[in-house]
Amino acid sequence: MEKGGIIFGHDERRCREFIERIDGSRPLFACVIASTETAKIPGLSAAGAMPEITDYTPPADVELLFYGKCKCIDGVPVTPDGIPTPALITMSALRLSGMPCFVVNGGLKVLPKVPFFEVGGSPGKDIRSGRSVESPQEVYERSSIIGRQLSKLADYLVVGESIPGGTTTALSVLLAMGVDARRKVSSSMPNNPHDLKMRVVEAALGTAGISFGSLQRDPFRAISSVGDPMMPAAAGLIAGAAEEVPVIMAGGTQMCAVLKVIESISPDVLSNLAIGTTKWILEDKTSDIRELISKIAPVPVLAAGLDFSSSKYSGLRAYELGVAKEGVGAGGSSIAAMLSSGGAITKDSLLREIEVNYGMLTNASPS
Amino acid sequence: MEKGGIIFGHDERRCREFIERIDGSRPLFACVIASTETAKIPGLSAAGAMPEITDYTPPADVELLFYGKCKCIDGVPVTPDGIPTPALITMSALRLSGMPCFVVNGGLKVLPKVPFFEVGGSPGKDIRSGRSVESPQEVYERSSIIGRQLSKLADYLVVGESIPGGTTTALSVLLAMGVDARRKVSSSMPNNPHDLKMRVVEAALGTAGISFGSLQRDPFRAISSVGDPMMPAAAGLIAGAAEEVPVIMAGGTQMCAVLKVIESISPDVLSNLAIGTTKWILEDKTSDIRELISKIAPVPVLAAGLDFSSSKYSGLRAYELGVAKEGVGAGGSSIAAMLSSGGAITKDSLLREIEVNYGMLTNASPS
Repeated sequence: MEKGGIIFGHDERRCREFIERIDGSRPLFACVIASTETAKIPGLSAAGAMPEITDYTPPADVELLFYGKCKCIDGVPVTPDGIPTPALITMSALRLSGMPCFVVNGGLKVLPKVPFFEVGGSPGKDIRSGRSVESPQEVYERSSIIGRQLSKLADYLVVGESIPGGTTTALSVLLAMGVDARRKVSSSMPNNPHDLKMRVVEAALGTAGISFGSLQRDPFRAISSVGDPMMPAAAGLIAGAAEEVPVIMAGGTQMCAVLKVIESISPDVLSNLAIGTTKWILEDKTSDIRELISKIAPVPVLAAGLDFSSSKYSGLRAYELGVAKEGVGAGGSSIAAMLSSGGAITKDSLLREIEVNYGMLTNASPS
Repeated sequence: MEKGGIIFGHDERRCREFIERIDGSRPLFACVIASTETAKIPGLSAAGAMPEITDYTPPADVELLFYGKCKCIDGVPVTPDGIPTPALITMSALRLSGMPCFVVNGGLKVLPKVPFFEVGGSPGKDIRSGRSVESPQEVYERSSIIGRQLSKLADYLVVGESIPGGTTTALSVLLAMGVDARRKVSSSMPNNPHDLKMRVVEAALGTAGISFGSLQRDPFRAISSVGDPMMPAAAGLIAGAAEEVPVIMAGGTQMCAVLKVIESISPDVLSNLAIGTTKWILEDKTSDIRELISKIAPVPVLAAGLDFSSSKYSGLRAYELGVAKEGVGAGGSSIAAMLSSGGAITKDSLLREIEVNYGMLTNASPS
């Protein structure tokens, strides 16, 4: 069912209960950004045509949130077809709602020209090395301190992510921890390269000596071997905040790996969590977030019912064809913007704001 | 006058009005830490006996706030006589009040093992180079973004600092900007080395080609030539927050230089500012914060009326002799802890908490 622009995607009772807890109250948005060399494997990420550009996508995304334009690149991050980053959605949700926004550096090759929280992380290596992330436990613990501090300041948190290549690292961590995610993680491309992802992940697990589920109780080893640096920062931030307040885990199937990590380290906080994503993730035929969540923890899945099919811009209508889909907390921040506004912000007013910002940023003409 | 443990140190009417605005409301504490090579000039800082230790004081101070112990050093920062850092007071105020706490890295040689905001700063050079701070404007602007975000989340901010050598850099920036601060800045030592400070500052101003007041309208050049990296971060953070909410500038005469910078860049926010310090700064016969403030801007000066004369520990009674005096927002955080507690936290209960923490951290026996 859909109510007020928000789709109850999985576990309708828990969806309703979660929304009742946060409706009309004050959210805080935080975005965890990181990079991994895994994203540069040809064909894996939407930005794979130009591997080095993946280093610039996360910093450019958060510059867009703070400044309404990118500083470390010209224009805005786009797919090879010119479809704009979902950060455009998040930026629009933040502008309409006035929601406070913070950035956490999980581990980046290129730093953004915005203020951000440092938690001691490093950029991620190619997971085929079997040693992809440094000091995940230290990063988790420092991030959980931020989560605890922020939980004193807002009624609930919305935590998004931006890391190219993140669905492949999610797949490898989920398999290492015993969640059969094969052919279930999503992609920013309409043609989800499942076979390539599996070959990369099998190579990674092989190098690290990990079999299916062998690290079920060792999330930090799963991350340090075959994960990415967004994971420990997001998991710590979310778990630290969720000790006290509800948290929307704002993302698609990448957040399933983060949820599995939290379920392993801090199961007491699960009742304070929901996944908040987009309609395009729920509708994606090449992935299955509901199935993944049902294998991990009894957590509701909410989705922003954004509909770009009537947009005057072809670059936005492309979202309805399954390009980009989600990222930078687009779905979760849209949900929070709508819920916090007492009806003033709707999926229609969001689309209008997104179109205004898209027009300004790209100089695109309606087409 | 003193009321509820808080001394009205300067401009009684504005003191009363400021307290009325924040009494009973929710504060947020932020501490800006940085380092400067200036601190290593022999005889200048309390830590001058071992110059390299000054790099560890700011990170150790904020580790104490988050963990109740230091991680980057054994024990806690102390003066050569073994008198503990004022961070002990701040830690106690935060623990009693539950106030949220954040750290901003203005530019550090040694990073703390806590989460902190990064704003693009670098460690400060010796001011005698005439080129002491890199990119102060960029740091100011990024810090002001943090201030604006945090101002959405709390009723008011308390902003402290920790930078050894900071009163000498304050003196040089104040002179460059036309505030006659000679023999008016304080010291963490009972014998304030005014003559040495003036020699250092005169050398710095000479190298940079600056005369008294010649940079009155160029605060960023004053900082980049003869300032320290705490200044642009603190000034930006404070000014950004004070666009919307009151801010206690928690510090002694170092905050006078920050205030002068804000007065020059962002005079509209002055009515939202107060200095919050300690009784020991007000009573210091070797410096004059009232005189400095009266030369800069019509801002009230509040002071925590902490009294350690009855403490069972000689290391704390030494504060009454003018050792340490202030730092890490000790005075401002004590004021905010008392005001936010509805009378539950007093200067006496603060002293008891400080004694408990001092005993645990130093294994000192009453003496």
